[in-house]
Amino acid sequence: MSIHFADRLLTAVKEKKSVAVVGIDPQLEMLPPELQEFAADFGERQKVLEIFGKGIIDAVAEVVPAVKPNIAFFETFGLAGLAAYVTICAHAYKQGLIVIGDVKRGDIASTARAYAAGLLRPLPPPTARADNPFQLGPHHAITVNPYLGNDGVAPFAQMASENGQGIFALVKTSNPTSREIQDLPLAAGGTVAEAVADLVRRWGEANIGDAGFSNVGAVVGATHPEQLACFRELMPAAFFLLPGYGAQGGTAAGLKPAFRADGAGAVVNASRSVIYAWRDYPNLTWTAAARAAAIKMNADLNSINN
Amino acid sequence: MSIHFADRLLTAVKEKKSVAVVGIDPQLEMLPPELQEFAADFGERQKVLEIFGKGIIDAVAEVVPAVKPNIAFFETFGLAGLAAYVTICAHAYKQGLIVIGDVKRGDIASTARAYAAGLLRPLPPPTARADNPFQLGPHHAITVNPYLGNDGVAPFAQMASENGQGIFALVKTSNPTSREIQDLPLAAGGTVAEAVADLVRRWGEANIGDAGFSNVGAVVGATHPEQLACFRELMPAAFFLLPGYGAQGGTAAGLKPAFRADGAGAVVNASRSVIYAWRDYPNLTWTAAARAAAIKMNADLNSINN
Repeated sequence: MSIHFADRLLTAVKEKKSVAVVGIDPQLEMLPPELQEFAADFGERQKVLEIFGKGIIDAVAEVVPAVKPNIAFFETFGLAGLAAYVTICAHAYKQGLIVIGDVKRGDIASTARAYAAGLLRPLPPPTARADNPFQLGPHHAITVNPYLGNDGVAPFAQMASENGQGIFALVKTSNPTSREIQDLPLAAGGTVAEAVADLVRRWGEANIGDAGFSNVGAVVGATHPEQLACFRELMPAAFFLLPGYGAQGGTAAGLKPAFRADGAGAVVNASRSVIYAWRDYPNLTWTAAARAAAIKMNADLNSINN
Repeated sequence: MSIHFADRLLTAVKEKKSVAVVGIDPQLEMLPPELQEFAADFGERQKVLEIFGKGIIDAVAEVVPAVKPNIAFFETFGLAGLAAYVTICAHAYKQGLIVIGDVKRGDIASTARAYAAGLLRPLPPPTARADNPFQLGPHHAITVNPYLGNDGVAPFAQMASENGQGIFALVKTSNPTSREIQDLPLAAGGTVAEAVADLVRRWGEANIGDAGFSNVGAVVGATHPEQLACFRELMPAAFFLLPGYGAQGGTAAGLKPAFRADGAGAVVNASRSVIYAWRDYPNLTWTAAARAAAIKMNADLNSINN
């Protein structure tokens, strides 16, 4: 039997003594200078993305439990970019990292099942190749968009449960205009995001792991610290994935209410502040800079629950 | 200067005398028997998807203005499936069809820009190859998910406007549980979907074509005929893409309120009832059956505004 996703994530957090997730969001114009040169050549871009992604993964593999490649930064280069996405997910998987595919998919039932089949294939055994061209991943978990309701989320949750994987549903995103829809007050009280949180709680009840966390988690922006306690109360068994720390302005101090009383139950993503740390550490290589930034992030985040 | 997307779509509707869009959603277990055999072989699946998609496109190219491949049914086969997606989009483009990529993407601003750059590259000139491996498409338009608000939609709308392309934002989806979030009543009156409709109207105001339609359209399920008049009023300049006709239960009779008084402004998608019409026409080949079903759909839909 496969390990429950939330228990696997919790174990990794404990082993690494880190609640940090490194977002792998390669943008050509922000790559280290020595990779920029390559990247100007259209045909070389897949290779550049792979060199960069693998370099970041190797740099942080010992110090963080998880990485979160955002597929948008690979789709932007079409099939060539997506081939790099598979290479990078497979490399992170082989390095023992938890791989959270930030894909934000969502569609009606039969279509959601089709997405899920490609994105949540059973995880490959340790001895097998992980870069299977007939899937996108491998992923321990993916993010999903809840706007279509249960039809659009249940197929992902079901497939994830069958394979010891997880999903994180968008509840309250980190961007400024998330308020336009997510913060709208409802006639019945609460906001749209709070109604989504209630759905996430219900979707997650079917599959709770040993530590009391579901394999249906929630994305809640680190940029909204004042809302975290409310969301923790609405979704007591949900693992939270908190984006927006670092470059987007979220700080560790505000994140304590996202965790359960025992200090468990959330991971915090940073992308640009780690993967482009070469700009902040002029005396280090870009990989050493990423590692240094991840270690600094750990120290900052570990202050939350100490 | 490129033609405005809405004007291009309107012209195609008039030329073909059809408001039908054929959804290309290949599911292996529903393919015609002579393709099923191939499809059992993992390595042959890209080829099977391409044969099926091109066959459907050639069968309907003269009788409908547009096709809507749903990328989920290609992502399900990983990189091999996505290569077939590009082949099929390129083939439809070369056949003179309007290509609406049903991708339902949405993310925060910088990430949405990355998606948009891959999905809404400038359309290739008629003499060039269209199956560029450094993009996903080509697409005249794509569908987007509005849950993240303006940050998540504006980058798509902007890139679409630059290239004479369009977007269709999900407002009210065709599936049963769309009610769980989209129909929630707001404290300020109306529903979540109506608030999204109001955003769609505002997003679209910046780019209205000659016929009075914006390049920011709306997805509104044909399965909710009682809500169409309200959405038409809320989004007077939006082209509607109506999924859910046919297999999902939407009928032509209910769709009249989706159109403007002059009979323009909406296209109706059917997938399974056209592409798997071989089941209904045992004496025809699967391509002839698809064409027959598309012609029948045209006759049915043309009754709306006559």
